[in-house]
Amino acid sequence: MQHFTHLRDLNPTSEPQRAAALITRARALKAGAKSRALSDKIMGLLFMDPSLRTRTSFDAAAIKLGGQSISLDVGQGVWGLEYLDNVAMNGDKPEHVREAAGVLSQYVDVLGVRAFSRGEGLSSDEADRVIGAFRRHASVPVISLESAREHPCQGLADLMTAQEHFGALSEVNITLSWAPHIKSLPRAVPNSLLLTAAALGCKIRVAHPLGYALAPEITAEAQKYAAVSGAKIDFYTHQMPAIKGAQIVYAKSWGQTDALVAPPNDPSLANWMLEPEHFNEAHPDAKFLHCLPVRRGVEVSHAVLDGPRSSVLSEAGNRLWVQMAALEWLMQANNLTAEDVIDLQSLT
Amino acid sequence: MQHFTHLRDLNPTSEPQRAAALITRARALKAGAKSRALSDKIMGLLFMDPSLRTRTSFDAAAIKLGGQSISLDVGQGVWGLEYLDNVAMNGDKPEHVREAAGVLSQYVDVLGVRAFSRGEGLSSDEADRVIGAFRRHASVPVISLESAREHPCQGLADLMTAQEHFGALSEVNITLSWAPHIKSLPRAVPNSLLLTAAALGCKIRVAHPLGYALAPEITAEAQKYAAVSGAKIDFYTHQMPAIKGAQIVYAKSWGQTDALVAPPNDPSLANWMLEPEHFNEAHPDAKFLHCLPVRRGVEVSHAVLDGPRSSVLSEAGNRLWVQMAALEWLMQANNLTAEDVIDLQSLT
Amino acid sequence: MQHFTHLRDLNPTSEPQRAAALITRARALKAGAKSRALSDKIMGLLFMDPSLRTRTSFDAAAIKLGGQSISLDVGQGVWGLEYLDNVAMNGDKPEHVREAAGVLSQYVDVLGVRAFSRGEGLSSDEADRVIGAFRRHASVPVISLESAREHPCQGLADLMTAQEHFGALSEVNITLSWAPHIKSLPRAVPNSLLLTAAALGCKIRVAHPLGYALAPEITAEAQKYAAVSGAKIDFYTHQMPAIKGAQIVYAKSWGQTDALVAPPNDPSLANWMLEPEHFNEAHPDAKFLHCLPVRRGVEVSHAVLDGPRSSVLSEAGNRLWVQMAALEWLMQANNLTAEDVIDLQSLT
Repeated sequence: MQHFTHLRDLNPTSEPQRAAALITRARALKAGAKSRALSDKIMGLLFMDPSLRTRTSFDAAAIKLGGQSISLDVGQGVWGLEYLDNVAMNGDKPEHVREAAGVLSQYVDVLGVRAFSRGEGLSSDEADRVIGAFRRHASVPVISLESAREHPCQGLADLMTAQEHFGALSEVNITLSWAPHIKSLPRAVPNSLLLTAAALGCKIRVAHPLGYALAPEITAEAQKYAAVSGAKIDFYTHQMPAIKGAQIVYAKSWGQTDALVAPPNDPSLANWMLEPEHFNEAHPDAKFLHCLPVRRGVEVSHAVLDGPRSSVLSEAGNRLWVQMAALEWLMQANNLTAEDVIDLQSLT
Repeated sequence: MQHFTHLRDLNPTSEPQRAAALITRARALKAGAKSRALSDKIMGLLFMDPSLRTRTSFDAAAIKLGGQSISLDVGQGVWGLEYLDNVAMNGDKPEHVREAAGVLSQYVDVLGVRAFSRGEGLSSDEADRVIGAFRRHASVPVISLESAREHPCQGLADLMTAQEHFGALSEVNITLSWAPHIKSLPRAVPNSLLLTAAALGCKIRVAHPLGYALAPEITAEAQKYAAVSGAKIDFYTHQMPAIKGAQIVYAKSWGQTDALVAPPNDPSLANWMLEPEHFNEAHPDAKFLHCLPVRRGVEVSHAVLDGPRSSVLSEAGNRLWVQMAALEWLMQANNLTAEDVIDLQSLT
Repeated sequence: MQHFTHLRDLNPTSEPQRAAALITRARALKAGAKSRALSDKIMGLLFMDPSLRTRTSFDAAAIKLGGQSISLDVGQGVWGLEYLDNVAMNGDKPEHVREAAGVLSQYVDVLGVRAFSRGEGLSSDEADRVIGAFRRHASVPVISLESAREHPCQGLADLMTAQEHFGALSEVNITLSWAPHIKSLPRAVPNSLLLTAAALGCKIRVAHPLGYALAPEITAEAQKYAAVSGAKIDFYTHQMPAIKGAQIVYAKSWGQTDALVAPPNDPSLANWMLEPEHFNEAHPDAKFLHCLPVRRGVEVSHAVLDGPRSSVLSEAGNRLWVQMAALEWLMQANNLTAEDVIDLQSLT
């Protein structure tokens, strides 16, 4: 079964054109191309965490592809889910992912799952156990709505937006700039930006304060993709040198590397909040991106968000088109047509 | 962009036939006329407050118009929303309406928003800031699912029901009678009843205890419409004289005018609860209306609600038809056809 | 109006073939037969309790039947509902089922309702007042999504699964084995298994500890069906003799008969948790069923759930097909076609 929960599902080392092809297809769909890839299909969307963009854009993607979607909120009208194996389920979670994934697979044709990091540190995020359990126990394709490790559709939408503004991604300078926040946030978005930009051959600079390094597994994976794509990746612990000449300045907050001992935020880092002045030495046409939701006046100033450099709305809009392209590819990769019926009984 | 969040969006002074035309169209749809006004369209419904009728009737309206809808509950699976400008977002609301409205506009073709009064007094209700922020920042038509100041689709459904029972609205006697409650309720429904009835030329009496006057801006706006339509508006602080001869008796509770100092309810006003005897001097065919939900035995007696005068169910049923008519008009007024694509990037 | 909230709605004594016909039709739908029974129809699904399978499988059933569904969660974005008559509604429930059912009937063509037992004892479950109020006050067919007394679509799915494995139901040996749990659970599922198996002529054994007897009204109703169908029903207070030779072993927990004085669970009963060894004297091809959600390591061991006897996933999958068959029958039984319009006003 082909799933799409991590960038590695696109095989960036052996199929380096795959990610680029999805963006090309997304742009064609945005330009008016039609697809009925989900005709007579049902997509399930299971949320273990809140969502505005993802929920609405996946719903809209299903409808525009000729299908329907069913949204489920775990813990709000849907039973809480256990994902650890071999535990006695005598706590507050009445259902196991083994059953939930196996059951839902018989009602829907593709299953989206959102399961954020629980802030248990890098090794827990790296393990990505919840979405991993859905991959193992679902008998339909699973697509990520953001998990602990990655947010792959966000990464594709980000790079699509960069390409719309600056053309060939191998020539684009992207700077990911850490941002302050009132909470210690997960790293799926910065991880996916780095991995996707690396797979697509960009020149990437990552700036963050000391103590906020991305996980070594993530940077190693990005370097592996860069070796194939020609991407260039550099890390900075100061912000301004990393922004110099950047075409895309991407602000995003995430928590300290040692999440278990770190305070949620450090007031001395408030000056990492992007102001218009931060763009003084950026590329003259530099654009500002952020995955949203964004805390105005904390992560980024009002002036940047409301100014001419901001492309956050069209970036969010592009979520719809890359998700349509990704869903179309998932259905094709799994040879799922409108006549297929998932009959679990005949499989066991 | 033509929105529909307040009765004034129908231009009752310069286009006095608009509100009546919507009711005429609603009655045609109820009688079996078909419309595909939302064919290939997606309606987003964003709820910041609970709903049964509105949620279901807008969903059903979208489906009957050939479209689809996506419901979003702020604070329940959807991020809490800030609507004030220029504040540092360091509190419990991770997303701003500026982004939410701009993003959703790229996924949906029309956006419904429910944002009740927060009980901060008449000037806050009059400002109606939440739905105002959506109007400013959405790039698709916004339709009200009830805001602090008005509930315009409820007003249209109320007058449609009056017309079904008594014909020409310019001849109909409507009495809005304040009702007791266990809480201090918002005024959007009485405001919309008064404004809509005024725009449609009815003879309106409003009865409420001392200290419960409607806002001066609302009564002034209603008088302005009455000057064009020929409506007649009178206010009473006793209930029985206001009901005498009434064809429509509309019960609704709302809070004291000075909401910030008022107790939620006053036991000495319990006798404003409508009983069958209150109809003794009403018109012989008088009908009882209420927007629902209604607290039986508190606002209105069981005997009235279950008796032959009650039309509350068909009143609620008419929500569906006026909303279909309003959505159809909104799409036409904005020249939105099935082929349109909202491309925010090309607009900025 | 034909509703389907209890097995007796199928008239097992006067129409003994009805339940079997629904299963036959469900199997045909599973095998690929198409139905447009809900074409241009809207199904409302009102949940007063959580759901994963029921919500998703009813949504999927509506879509596969050519219709649409609208899900509503009472107390989460939808007003809390009072169901008792003639009370002053001055508590935490702002809306009455009388209005809710009457209003929703004007927006939807069929209404599903979930309203679990409140754990108030057998006579309260037997009265089944919430779903009874919906039956009385809805003007469209009501279908149960599980109520206090029964979960009729679960019972049909259970027996469909038994028939898929073992053929003619009159020859099938089914054992319902009580299971331990951390909470005192409702009895709708065991009640429906017993009633449905009795109506379909199975050989049924029910095993439970002393103090956990099913309600006398349930067993009497089952015996009445057995008198027509030829079913055989026996009760055991020990587990192993009841499992001997069983083809279907169905585990399910429920609370003590005297729910009001009983502790939620008794540690001395932990050995009722099904282990592979419990199947040693069962039929060699015995299958394990459970309605799900199941607490692994509490009700049933991991080894049974993950072993070759488990059919819990295809049992859950069969929910979809029996619900499609039940909805199709409901629409036909009520002569509801795509052109019908429920006009409550003309009815009153």
